[in-house]
Amino acid sequence: MNIAILGFGTVGTGVYKIIEKAKRQTQNLHVKHILIRKNKKPDLPEMTDDIDEILNDKDLDVVVEVLGGIEPAHQYILAALKHKKHVITANKAVIARYMDEFTKIAADNGVKFYFESSVGGGIPWIQGLERALRVDDVNKIQGIFNGTSNFILDQMKKTGKSFNDVLLQAQQLGYAEADPSADIDGLDVANKLCISVDIAYDIFVKPTDELPIFGIRNITGDDIAYFNQKGLTVKLMGKSHQRGNEFDYVVEPTLYHGDTLEANTTDNYNLISLHGETIGNLKFMGQGAGQLPTANAVIQDILDIFQHKEHLKREFMSNLKYRSDLTRSNYIVRSEIDCSKMFAKFDPCVRGDYLVIHQIPIGEMHRLMRQVLKQDGTAFMASLPDRKGGAAQ
Amino acid sequence: MNIAILGFGTVGTGVYKIIEKAKRQTQNLHVKHILIRKNKKPDLPEMTDDIDEILNDKDLDVVVEVLGGIEPAHQYILAALKHKKHVITANKAVIARYMDEFTKIAADNGVKFYFESSVGGGIPWIQGLERALRVDDVNKIQGIFNGTSNFILDQMKKTGKSFNDVLLQAQQLGYAEADPSADIDGLDVANKLCISVDIAYDIFVKPTDELPIFGIRNITGDDIAYFNQKGLTVKLMGKSHQRGNEFDYVVEPTLYHGDTLEANTTDNYNLISLHGETIGNLKFMGQGAGQLPTANAVIQDILDIFQHKEHLKREFMSNLKYRSDLTRSNYIVRSEIDCSKMFAKFDPCVRGDYLVIHQIPIGEMHRLMRQVLKQDGTAFMASLPDRKGGAAQ
Repeated sequence: MNIAILGFGTVGTGVYKIIEKAKRQTQNLHVKHILIRKNKKPDLPEMTDDIDEILNDKDLDVVVEVLGGIEPAHQYILAALKHKKHVITANKAVIARYMDEFTKIAADNGVKFYFESSVGGGIPWIQGLERALRVDDVNKIQGIFNGTSNFILDQMKKTGKSFNDVLLQAQQLGYAEADPSADIDGLDVANKLCISVDIAYDIFVKPTDELPIFGIRNITGDDIAYFNQKGLTVKLMGKSHQRGNEFDYVVEPTLYHGDTLEANTTDNYNLISLHGETIGNLKFMGQGAGQLPTANAVIQDILDIFQHKEHLKREFMSNLKYRSDLTRSNYIVRSEIDCSKMFAKFDPCVRGDYLVIHQIPIGEMHRLMRQVLKQDGTAFMASLPDRKGGAAQ
Repeated sequence: MNIAILGFGTVGTGVYKIIEKAKRQTQNLHVKHILIRKNKKPDLPEMTDDIDEILNDKDLDVVVEVLGGIEPAHQYILAALKHKKHVITANKAVIARYMDEFTKIAADNGVKFYFESSVGGGIPWIQGLERALRVDDVNKIQGIFNGTSNFILDQMKKTGKSFNDVLLQAQQLGYAEADPSADIDGLDVANKLCISVDIAYDIFVKPTDELPIFGIRNITGDDIAYFNQKGLTVKLMGKSHQRGNEFDYVVEPTLYHGDTLEANTTDNYNLISLHGETIGNLKFMGQGAGQLPTANAVIQDILDIFQHKEHLKREFMSNLKYRSDLTRSNYIVRSEIDCSKMFAKFDPCVRGDYLVIHQIPIGEMHRLMRQVLKQDGTAFMASLPDRKGGAAQ
């Protein structure tokens, strides 16, 4: 099977490395083209800076898009699908935004559009979710979807250092980018959550204003110390619930008791869970990023195409409706302003420097918190475990 | 697709229930026969006590064997395969013993022999392991494979009760059988570990004398309290390592630090892990037993057959050799006899009522422990974490 890799950064190089090793079932895979940047000197005979040379190759079967970013990735994916090439991408930003378009164009052209590596890196999450859906409705998803933010929170807990010190360390280690906002403000989690929701409920949602997002930029060493003292560990989570014909989804810091798998998912690992009617709770832990785990997931998609293992069909015809107040939760808030009046309806209780708010709808909480942030840009919040074992059910 | 269910106990009933619900992709499945015990009164029109009526049905596609036990399950599976019916079984004891025979007869007759539900219940472990093997050599497997023993150890830790009190409670709740030996002596784990090893290394191993097995029958409330005080949690594990052309496998109580996923796998959950070259660590947690999770895994196998999703081929042609001293580990031993001389080569150190033994080959440890048990039938041992994070690598 002939493959073109668009982009030869970390993941692209990883895909090439694994295929070159030609172990087990990968010996029939052949990297025929590698798209590099315009005017960059080619190091390998497969390299070209001409996308049309790739698209017009009649013997090419699969295009692996690992450029990252929205454009030209979006245009290249569309063009490849229209040239009847299967497309595999690790690019969660472009999938989250254009999943419906890619799905339709792929179906129209009789080719596959697969993206296992885009959520959870090497974790077979998309595969696991799709399999669960063959038998069950999935009514809950929750995940530590972002390794960088998990590394930061874990290091803060282990070392007692400040957010900024640990962020700097993560940047020096290459775990965080120079502009870390996608990781720490929850946008990367939002993309991965939307992709998961798209599949779980067969609807198309984008990480727009409708999705409540609160990141970890404002967390302090004192916050971590206080949570620790209460036996709680904070994780940046993407979560979604489905009941009847309604669903919600949210990205927010979430506190877990010390004896949960979430609290003990350390370093830059990911942990993603689903709950289905007959399967119950199912959790997958693994390397959510990194060259070889992510490349491994790309190769798995290639092998699925090669072995004719079709993924779940998406039609986005579900009549599920988003409802921002579907789920209620308890929250803890830290702010320099007195916001007990603002949360008066939800039994606000002062706990040291914090305010605990009870059984507030998730959407309402995020709306009110945006008002708090306007007056106090340093404010922080996290959802609290309902009972033993985790966040709101 | 026409299905026969052999045995209508917990799992058989679950398979029937899920198919009757006819959700999503299961609507094409049809239970045509249910084999019940001789002379038992049939409650449903599908029921029969005549295995030949089932085997000779030309329109039957799949036989689901959920009788349990070795015979007649073994003969029925062989007969079904020879009648060119696909066979799916949840029966780990019969698979662990006859995997090679079933694999060969299925291939000879051009039908499938699948067994996802036999290891890890609802956890897609076989599927996950087979996928990992498409790209990687898997060089480590470790799992909490048995929910009953995990429930017992977890309850002992949570309540401080004795082994016997918790075992009785588990029996009353229906989590443990009247004769609990398969669960507490490690035989169930041994079956599941052997099945995993068969697939991981493409060799056929049986849970014979070669496999070192040590169960939890001798653990006391004082042991649990002592481990607790050291920040350690004990789990009954099945483990296997592969290096070069050699492998080992072992079933034994294993101590984990409190901040590992293993230590925090509570109740009757299972947690099964693999390590592969490019994928790194991958862990799956879920319901390792129970009617609907196990039945769900049976249905997944049926759907794989229906959707022509072929599982990994097994040929058992690997030249991997078992070596009992491949891996060394530290152990803690409790015995009423003084056994420091016996372990003199491995730097034995007294720690209260316990002896800590250093860097002893796993096989040697189990051999010596069998000698200890001859003099002190109450002796207990567990392997210790090598460094932070778990048992011997």
